[in-house]
Amino acid sequence: MNAIASNMPIKVDRDQLQRDFDALAALTEPGKPWTRRSFTDMFLKGRECLARRFAEEGLATHIDASGNLIGTWFGSDADLPVLMTGSHSDTVPSGGRFDGIAGILSGLAAIRALRLAGYRPIHAIELVDFLAEEPSEWGLSCIGSRGMAGALTPEHFAMPGPDGERLDDAIARMGGVPAQVAGTVRKDVGAFVEIHIEQGPVLEAENIPLAIVSGIAGIARVRLRLEGEAGHAGTVPMAMRADAGMAMARLLLALRDAARTESEKGRGHFTATIGVMRLEPNGANVVPGAAEAIVDIRAENDAAMDDYLSLIDALAEAAASAEGCRVAATERLSRTFAVACDGRLQARIKDAADAHGLATLSLASGAGHDAAFVARIAPAAMIFVPSRGGISHAPEEWTDTEAIARAADVLALTLSTLDQRPLAINE
Amino acid sequence: MNAIASNMPIKVDRDQLQRDFDALAALTEPGKPWTRRSFTDMFLKGRECLARRFAEEGLATHIDASGNLIGTWFGSDADLPVLMTGSHSDTVPSGGRFDGIAGILSGLAAIRALRLAGYRPIHAIELVDFLAEEPSEWGLSCIGSRGMAGALTPEHFAMPGPDGERLDDAIARMGGVPAQVAGTVRKDVGAFVEIHIEQGPVLEAENIPLAIVSGIAGIARVRLRLEGEAGHAGTVPMAMRADAGMAMARLLLALRDAARTESEKGRGHFTATIGVMRLEPNGANVVPGAAEAIVDIRAENDAAMDDYLSLIDALAEAAASAEGCRVAATERLSRTFAVACDGRLQARIKDAADAHGLATLSLASGAGHDAAFVARIAPAAMIFVPSRGGISHAPEEWTDTEAIARAADVLALTLSTLDQRPLAINE
Repeated sequence: MNAIASNMPIKVDRDQLQRDFDALAALTEPGKPWTRRSFTDMFLKGRECLARRFAEEGLATHIDASGNLIGTWFGSDADLPVLMTGSHSDTVPSGGRFDGIAGILSGLAAIRALRLAGYRPIHAIELVDFLAEEPSEWGLSCIGSRGMAGALTPEHFAMPGPDGERLDDAIARMGGVPAQVAGTVRKDVGAFVEIHIEQGPVLEAENIPLAIVSGIAGIARVRLRLEGEAGHAGTVPMAMRADAGMAMARLLLALRDAARTESEKGRGHFTATIGVMRLEPNGANVVPGAAEAIVDIRAENDAAMDDYLSLIDALAEAAASAEGCRVAATERLSRTFAVACDGRLQARIKDAADAHGLATLSLASGAGHDAAFVARIAPAAMIFVPSRGGISHAPEEWTDTEAIARAADVLALTLSTLDQRPLAINE
Repeated sequence: MNAIASNMPIKVDRDQLQRDFDALAALTEPGKPWTRRSFTDMFLKGRECLARRFAEEGLATHIDASGNLIGTWFGSDADLPVLMTGSHSDTVPSGGRFDGIAGILSGLAAIRALRLAGYRPIHAIELVDFLAEEPSEWGLSCIGSRGMAGALTPEHFAMPGPDGERLDDAIARMGGVPAQVAGTVRKDVGAFVEIHIEQGPVLEAENIPLAIVSGIAGIARVRLRLEGEAGHAGTVPMAMRADAGMAMARLLLALRDAARTESEKGRGHFTATIGVMRLEPNGANVVPGAAEAIVDIRAENDAAMDDYLSLIDALAEAAASAEGCRVAATERLSRTFAVACDGRLQARIKDAADAHGLATLSLASGAGHDAAFVARIAPAAMIFVPSRGGISHAPEEWTDTEAIARAADVLALTLSTLDQRPLAINE
């Protein structure tokens, strides 16, 4: 039936993979490496390059209703579900050369390797460049994967972006057909596997080449506002102060300590981060009268998130009252729930890695990904490759081509195995 | 020799004092009460009003070389030193109706009361509106009192302000003669007393009408920069972080605790304040890679300031290393030394308050004042009146007219007593 057996570990073409990375890296806003923002001309140049490469590897390319670029390797049986891989080609401003694009180019490398080995799939295999995974100028992320999964709403379509352009108009400008998005939610995807850089330090620290992602964390954002009494830095005695900055300093440490405690409970990946903080009026000679911060919480376990969110008011109250201040707000700005990766797919990936002699570890994703939306319509899983220094969203972002190629090797074997032996209900 | 005895407690005209406050409060930038910034047309309108009032009360007015408006009540013996009082008529943006102007109008009220009582001084009595006490658009404060005391340098004169105007040109625009500043440093001042609002909460909290200022604190500013490792809020595990925001939170609390300890040692007024703090890159989804803050330190005792400044490096090192971060900077931006108020003058003011049946307490000034510069050329002292809620530099700044009038009563008696019995070396 096929020229190669489904369990034969083949290796992808490292040199071609390197050439593909180089070609995409060259397509950046000049003087601002590496920037290919969604909905820009530079983004479209990147897509032209990708579409050409998809075609060179024998894929039929089209843009779907949500604006996703899809390359299809047709299978011998058009009635079977589709096997899908891919990621995104857009970047944050001054981002890196790997976040997103690694998932597309490793998918392309896997398909190329299978084709060169003479493999002919039964199921169609689709390679997707999801539109606008990074937070776009419209203030929304994962636009293409939301659309594919039926999670783009009329409210989203009406969001205004640069020059007041509506999001649906921008999607149409990318080649999508917004009016058809709702009617074309995908129900034909049998499995989805996304390769992505870790964006964290764990794989490097553990010296393990691959992580099989257990789930994608839910994310909550809470705005904190503490108020005290502003006063002259020189004239208000230390003992008579209600310094909102000191109350916030206490709260920051308390929130971090509580997150550390939760993360050690064995309920999966858990983080809480205060990346934004502001004193008011922010004058060197004024005792702060108010302090604001945003706490970003990520939890693989929704119950852990619930528990932590329910702690915040008490922690804020304790920190404020210890400094004679008051809690003016603990406002939940947003919350998404955790997404578990498909256990069967995780096992298939582990088997493929074993066949290649590659060690793996299990890791939750603290970052959001297209896979979290695709998981709404299909079994989905992810493979992480190491990020040097844990750095991402910066020009210094780096992953060796060899490290990505190994993941592509595993992806190729995973796809051919899935093609030969689809996921079963009770496996 | 005089129509009234030097020890007769007379009271100033409350109604006239109220009218004078109302007249000055009306001279504010429209829609931005209360704003009369130095070197502006509105400032000059305020001065016109003051000069007219000075003349109405029989004072000879002129602008000195440094741009100070001076009203002189000539004494019977022109060879004797001058007795001086006054403060400043400029404001911060959106400031109050009392900071500065209270010291001029209460001086005017005291002189009016003495004149109406038939008093004729032996020493000349000068009432001064010092130029630009508040930090001006030139980035310098106490410009007029610096000039009077010989503390304006060629570097100061060359400082550029709005539209590139040099400071000396701006002083000339106010009626000063910058070229003559260095040659006219005052050596003829026998005593200086400045009435000012407290700008703090102590008098109100203690329910005491007046404070006799023991000294004006020295001020130091230190820039702090801690660096850790920036990272993705979702992907860097809690246990692998070097969060510069957490290190700074620890440092803020440690600096405050050390200041509180120092303030309880009995070495006089001491404060340390962190009013400015910034996280980098200040993104909700990024673990802070760096944090900056400025600590403002005020000490009545220079040794206490020395001790505290010498602690900062160790406190920063401890806070940073506890979070796996490093100290990138503890940079001293500025330092001025404390100025003690003249003990004999403080005693004279106390005697005058006693004669009026007014309770007093001794308080250091944590804010800078013109008196700190005049103290370089003459015995100087200050009287504080209560600030409601301790608030200043804001539209809500408030002191009752009666409270200011009481201080003016004490000033009138202090001036006449000094006129009759000048300060002696060994009193």
